Amino acid sequence: MMHDHDDDRTPVTVIGLGLMGQALAGAFLRDGHPTTVWNRTAAKAEQLVAEGAKLAGSVGAAVAASPLVVVCVSDYQAVHELLDPLGEELGGRVLVNLTSGTSQGARQTAEWAARRGGTYLDGAIMAAPAAVGADAVILYSGPRPAFDLHEPVLRSLGTGTTYLGDDHGLSSLYDVAVLSLMWNILNGFLQGAALLGAAGVDAAAFAPIAKTGIGTVADWVPGYAQQIDDGAYPALDSTINTHLAAMEHLVHESESLGVNAELPKFIKALADRAMADGHGGNGYAAMIEQFRKPAGTRS
Amino acid sequence: MMHDHDDDRTPVTVIGLGLMGQALAGAFLRDGHPTTVWNRTAAKAEQLVAEGAKLAGSVGAAVAASPLVVVCVSDYQAVHELLDPLGEELGGRVLVNLTSGTSQGARQTAEWAARRGGTYLDGAIMAAPAAVGADAVILYSGPRPAFDLHEPVLRSLGTGTTYLGDDHGLSSLYDVAVLSLMWNILNGFLQGAALLGAAGVDAAAFAPIAKTGIGTVADWVPGYAQQIDDGAYPALDSTINTHLAAMEHLVHESESLGVNAELPKFIKALADRAMADGHGGNGYAAMIEQFRKPAGTRS
Ligand SMILES: NC(=O)c1ccc[n+]([C@@H]2O[C@H](COP(=O)([O-])OP(=O)(O)OC[C@H]3O[C@@H](n4cnc5c(N)ncnc54)[C@H](OP(=O)(O)O)[C@@H]3O)[C@@H](O)[C@H]2O)c1
Ligand SMILES: NC(=O)c1ccc[n+]([C@@H]2O[C@H](COP(=O)([O-])OP(=O)(O)OC[C@H]3O[C@@H](n4cnc5c(N)ncnc54)[C@H](OP(=O)(O)O)[C@@H]3O)[C@@H](O)[C@H]2O)c1
Repeated sequence: MMHDHDDDRTPVTVIGLGLMGQALAGAFLRDGHPTTVWNRTAAKAEQLVAEGAKLAGSVGAAVAASPLVVVCVSDYQAVHELLDPLGEELGGRVLVNLTSGTSQGARQTAEWAARRGGTYLDGAIMAAPAAVGADAVILYSGPRPAFDLHEPVLRSLGTGTTYLGDDHGLSSLYDVAVLSLMWNILNGFLQGAALLGAAGVDAAAFAPIAKTGIGTVADWVPGYAQQIDDGAYPALDSTINTHLAAMEHLVHESESLGVNAELPKFIKALADRAMADGHGGNGYAAMIEQFRKPAGTRS
Repeated sequence: MMHDHDDDRTPVTVIGLGLMGQALAGAFLRDGHPTTVWNRTAAKAEQLVAEGAKLAGSVGAAVAASPLVVVCVSDYQAVHELLDPLGEELGGRVLVNLTSGTSQGARQTAEWAARRGGTYLDGAIMAAPAAVGADAVILYSGPRPAFDLHEPVLRSLGTGTTYLGDDHGLSSLYDVAVLSLMWNILNGFLQGAALLGAAGVDAAAFAPIAKTGIGTVADWVPGYAQQIDDGAYPALDSTINTHLAAMEHLVHESESLGVNAELPKFIKALADRAMADGHGGNGYAAMIEQFRKPAGTRS
């Protein structure tokens, strides 16, 4: 006799059915999890209900419906507006908060959940809604046993399901660290496109060469990480002094072409400080020490 | 009867045998080109001579020896110290300058070479010496016929041989644009590593997630380029307003953890300006307009 599909699937609740919450609930449903949903604006549940989701009548009923409760709303303030009024419903439940926020917010929410008898996992979705249920990278932090228990369920949301550690703040920290990296890459591309654009070159002409350059640097990352962890930065290729000579060209070209030279000057100023700190003969990984210093602090 | 290998190979000269010049001459030799070399410090030619290179007795003799002359020394000042004293030797020769410099320096050197009856190509090596003769990306700019004539020879230096256009300044411009992109990526990684490091996370733990993030952004580049060239920046995923909320988290986390918050604040300040310019509802590509403005200019 065939096993009833639903019987071996953990029931889940999704609270918040914005763009992301709908994608999360849809992915659980497609993987056969009995899925309860709730949203402030109930109309956003209609499509999911048509696909088999159960619409709860209240936040409390939604939380009570499943051992695993996922919340994904605009911000932590919305999380607390929704969940603070609850009574006993959170007791014995695992609350997974995929709302973007700060590490401090995550740690405070963990304490709040513990006072209600709930177990808390914080998470960060490093993907667009379209990647949810496919190759989305979603980072989790909080107590390992709770993650291990529900990992098979959470994998329904993305093949990039990753556990970071016990500290509830880690997923928010990784989130901003990766976003920061992304903004830096985009800014680097835009700076280059502005520079070349001023010389009459289309961004489309720059794109393939930029893409190759980005791929090259991606391959350097593990080696840089090793040097950072070792605290030793031998120059494998170029020294910071060599970089500085080219940074002067970047500042010069930006100024000559009349584009924004703030970022080039900032890049050079950081390297100048590393040189002043005696790192001119080291590789670029030595710059980590500049990033560790609070602004205005010089050694 | 077999064709003598050397007979169908253009003779080349390499002037400057530092780390890079030695790699260039070695790649020509391995591809069977009769190779003449010269270096201020003659001892650096020894290994190449053992491999079949011919050591010229003077810079003039080196230039006279081949129709294609590659120079790769520390900077443009060194190029001119070496070549300015020449007489007629450059006449009818194609000089390829792979020394790093500015677009202005490249254009001036092209004029100088023209006065000597030589044809000038400027180039930029976007690779370490180890990649020369393999997959090195080397960018060239200057007259197309001269590039086309010698492209098969120049391909000995790397499969990434790329012609950019007639303007001699282009290779230097692309060079700093790609380097700028690389520094931005590295700075983004270092900022993230500093942030996570302050929370007790090893850079090695961040590296694989960072690498995935870099790869994701690399795939966005052609789409961004298209929007830049079109001058229209519809938000495909996130708007600048959404980015700003996360940028506030980045600044907050950096300050809370006591790491350098200058770069996070700069990233946010640029996005704030884009929002003030009415781009809050647009995608991140709208930031190109901030990079086009000279520092201090606000619309
Ligand atoms: N979309 C993405 O690409 C993406 C990617 C990664 C992470 N995220 C994160 O995922 C979270 C949700 O994003 P989203 O794209 O789904 O946003 P969204 O489409 O704007 O949806 C926001 C959701 O939050 C609810 N909400 C807001 N304030 C509320 C309140 N005070 N009380 C009750 N419900 C409230 C909304 O309910 P109503 O429907 O009633 O307004 C809606 O369900 C955010 O933290 C975002 O940073 C999104
Ligand atoms: N190495 C890389 O990874 C790399 C990558 C991309 C681009 N580049 C560019 O390639 C060029 C050469 O770099 P490199 O790594 O080969 O540098 P290097 O190892 O320091 O060698 C410098 C070369 O320049 C010569 N030179 C310097 N000043 C001179 C002068 N006044 N007169 C005559 N010769 C002089 C040196 O001669 P002596 O031997 O007599 O000192 C030597 O041959 C630079 O523009 C660099 O930016 C290098």
